[in-house]
Amino acid sequence: MAASPDRGFSELLEQVLSHIDSNLEASRERLFELLRIPSISAQNAHGADCRRAAEWARDTLAEMGFAAKLSETAGLPGVIARHHAAGPTAPHVLFYGHYDVQPADPLGLWESDPFDPQLVDGPRGKRIVARGAVDDKGQVVSFLEACRAHIAVTGTLPVRLTILLEGEEECGSPSLTELLTNERDILAADFVLVADTNMWDFETPAITASLRGLAGVQVTVKAASRDLHSGLYGGLALNPIAALTRVLGELKDDQGHIRIPGFYDGIAPVSAELAKSWEGLGFSPETFLGEVGLAVPAGEHGQSPLAQLWARPTAEINGIYGGYQGEGAKTVIPAEATAKITFRLVPGQDPRKIIENFEKFFADRLPPDARAEFKHYGASPGFAVALDAPFMRAAQAALADEFGKPPALVGSGGSIPVVEAFKTQLGLDTLLAGFGLDDDRIHSPNEKFELACFHRGTRAHARLLSAFAG
Amino acid sequence: MAASPDRGFSELLEQVLSHIDSNLEASRERLFELLRIPSISAQNAHGADCRRAAEWARDTLAEMGFAAKLSETAGLPGVIARHHAAGPTAPHVLFYGHYDVQPADPLGLWESDPFDPQLVDGPRGKRIVARGAVDDKGQVVSFLEACRAHIAVTGTLPVRLTILLEGEEECGSPSLTELLTNERDILAADFVLVADTNMWDFETPAITASLRGLAGVQVTVKAASRDLHSGLYGGLALNPIAALTRVLGELKDDQGHIRIPGFYDGIAPVSAELAKSWEGLGFSPETFLGEVGLAVPAGEHGQSPLAQLWARPTAEINGIYGGYQGEGAKTVIPAEATAKITFRLVPGQDPRKIIENFEKFFADRLPPDARAEFKHYGASPGFAVALDAPFMRAAQAALADEFGKPPALVGSGGSIPVVEAFKTQLGLDTLLAGFGLDDDRIHSPNEKFELACFHRGTRAHARLLSAFAG
Repeated sequence: MAASPDRGFSELLEQVLSHIDSNLEASRERLFELLRIPSISAQNAHGADCRRAAEWARDTLAEMGFAAKLSETAGLPGVIARHHAAGPTAPHVLFYGHYDVQPADPLGLWESDPFDPQLVDGPRGKRIVARGAVDDKGQVVSFLEACRAHIAVTGTLPVRLTILLEGEEECGSPSLTELLTNERDILAADFVLVADTNMWDFETPAITASLRGLAGVQVTVKAASRDLHSGLYGGLALNPIAALTRVLGELKDDQGHIRIPGFYDGIAPVSAELAKSWEGLGFSPETFLGEVGLAVPAGEHGQSPLAQLWARPTAEINGIYGGYQGEGAKTVIPAEATAKITFRLVPGQDPRKIIENFEKFFADRLPPDARAEFKHYGASPGFAVALDAPFMRAAQAALADEFGKPPALVGSGGSIPVVEAFKTQLGLDTLLAGFGLDDDRIHSPNEKFELACFHRGTRAHARLLSAFAG
Repeated sequence: MAASPDRGFSELLEQVLSHIDSNLEASRERLFELLRIPSISAQNAHGADCRRAAEWARDTLAEMGFAAKLSETAGLPGVIARHHAAGPTAPHVLFYGHYDVQPADPLGLWESDPFDPQLVDGPRGKRIVARGAVDDKGQVVSFLEACRAHIAVTGTLPVRLTILLEGEEECGSPSLTELLTNERDILAADFVLVADTNMWDFETPAITASLRGLAGVQVTVKAASRDLHSGLYGGLALNPIAALTRVLGELKDDQGHIRIPGFYDGIAPVSAELAKSWEGLGFSPETFLGEVGLAVPAGEHGQSPLAQLWARPTAEINGIYGGYQGEGAKTVIPAEATAKITFRLVPGQDPRKIIENFEKFFADRLPPDARAEFKHYGASPGFAVALDAPFMRAAQAALADEFGKPPALVGSGGSIPVVEAFKTQLGLDTLLAGFGLDDDRIHSPNEKFELACFHRGTRAHARLLSAFAG
């Protein structure tokens, strides 16, 4: 008796999954190749490394049978690859990831070279330790390896697939608009699949249904024309560190509310479906914070811990510097002091307005003899994902098959500005399903990706590709 | 007819001064030798350089006929040299200076290598540009060259002279007590002459009659056990930069008063004689601040500009750092943030109490999950000098002879902790007469010493030595 089409499909998928299981070591080694390239997009000195990572991805995809190229921009190139053998009536999936990584500093806190990936023992088995292990190189390679397995077993892919890998995600995606504009026709898919998010926990997959946006600004307060001796000038001369800390110290009130005028204007409420899902998650702020040595939610009073993370905006000082920072003391009043600030934004907030209001808030509070200079680093609004699209339901089923339980519908405090860009520029909805864990230390020293997550992520991606085919 | 003793004395002095004039170029070259040694006491990496500077001074003094040695301490050695040929009834002067210098950073703002001294043209003729040009190597060498001239012309010195050069003045003098204790007998002079202060202006010498003290503290606010992603944790996790800036922002009220409890306790009023002298100085805050690009006195409301500089205490943030300080943005909540703070103190304030109260002020304001760690950097009280001692009157006459006008009796906002140490440990009063100018950029890039000030400083030191002999 001939197998039913469903059964044949299922058997093929089982062979693909089995192929993934058998070739895990080779898949991991390919990930290590990419991890060895220090593609730090925020630092000009690593420009050539970023390009090398892009070329690695292009060549890897070309070897797998994709039509692959670099797409040049004013900044770092995108990688674009197409595999459309499934034919013109097959669903067209656009996969998005990024090949750049965060800076690795503070280097002294790494237990191994951030760009010499290590496979080390952990409580959940082996783990991959490197900058970019999970964010986003590990997630990207898990998808590429799922494609490789499909092609190895079936000779093709179950869907038309276009892959877009960005090179500036970690520095605010300054060239993304240019990239999407230039490649508009090639990127005209049915929806976008993004692998840059986390599972709910080690056993439970997740689909991220809301994302906070991001707006970044750097402020430098300048005062005297040169550094001054704090004895000879102290008391009479304005200290720009004092001016900076004074204004920053007023950024929030005693209840944790951000005091920038209009900051909370227009915020849209969380949908009932999502709010209900969140309530069922059993989130424990004590556990979440306890893992990083903290105990007390530090955000807005009167908001639930999950709302503080997913549904409420923030103002964070990411860096500050001015004056003497070396060993010992130096009795100086410096000429300037700088802070780097980012705002996490939620649906309804206008990033440009937030930055504009912050600059006014800052300027209004500066004392005489101080002036502020601002630099901007990216701006993307918060975003809520449509839950009822067919690809969303297919994804829920595929993830449930792999993990034996349905995915959690979660929010994310972090930004994926491309989600907004795909919507506004290409009219595409986005499915966010990733395989990182909250304790993966992304953006921190000793970033890791559980080998089991890399493995199951690859399997889940293989299932997703089949599920999208219908 | 034989010359009267006075006339003979005067003629000898004229010969000494003439010798100084004729040998200025060689004197300057000896100063350059010392300036080429990067004796930065605050940085351990320069420990050997500091010792080299000490050895240079010891050898130079030995060649001039002094009994010279290094006096070892737990830190950097002092240089001690004696020339007592004037006999046991001659006045015994203890000269104090320091051979260490401030760090040279920010290096990028120097127009020449800070340790490759340059003679460049300026509006007042040639000037010497280097780290330590005036503070304190230039002033020290001007004194040594005055001694050299006396010895060259007369074969001896008019007073018994002991020279003490310290190597840790720029990092809070941690070994000074040990040094004064170890060398107590050798240092038992009649009074101390210190060359580490400024003239009132290019034409007017000054004797500094009040000094602010100094207490330094570094505070590090620690929160999470590692750096956190500001998207994944922002809103729930405490940001130590926010905690630090918030507390520092509360350090002063809207009137510029420092809010640390008990900060102003016990402050002694300025003496009537000194206050009268200050009134006559015609100090212009607009000119003083205008030279460094500022316009508005930034200190305590209700205090005169000179009082803000000389008679009132300060709290200055000399340095601050935490989180990402590189190019671009990094969306991190760092694990810690640090500030370096010094307080300028006036007579009556207890440095230890100030630091203790600051730490309490700080700890009281920390939010949950933040903890503060403190380091201390030196502590010396403010000091007012006795104006009526015979050596003080002799000095006024000598300076008037050199400059054609009496010295201004001024205050100093900067600290010379040895003044207090000489008083409390050795029972000695101190005469502060130096030849720097307010625009010499001490502790800043492009520190300079006018060649004319070096020259007149050498001549004035020669006159002072004669005047002390009576």
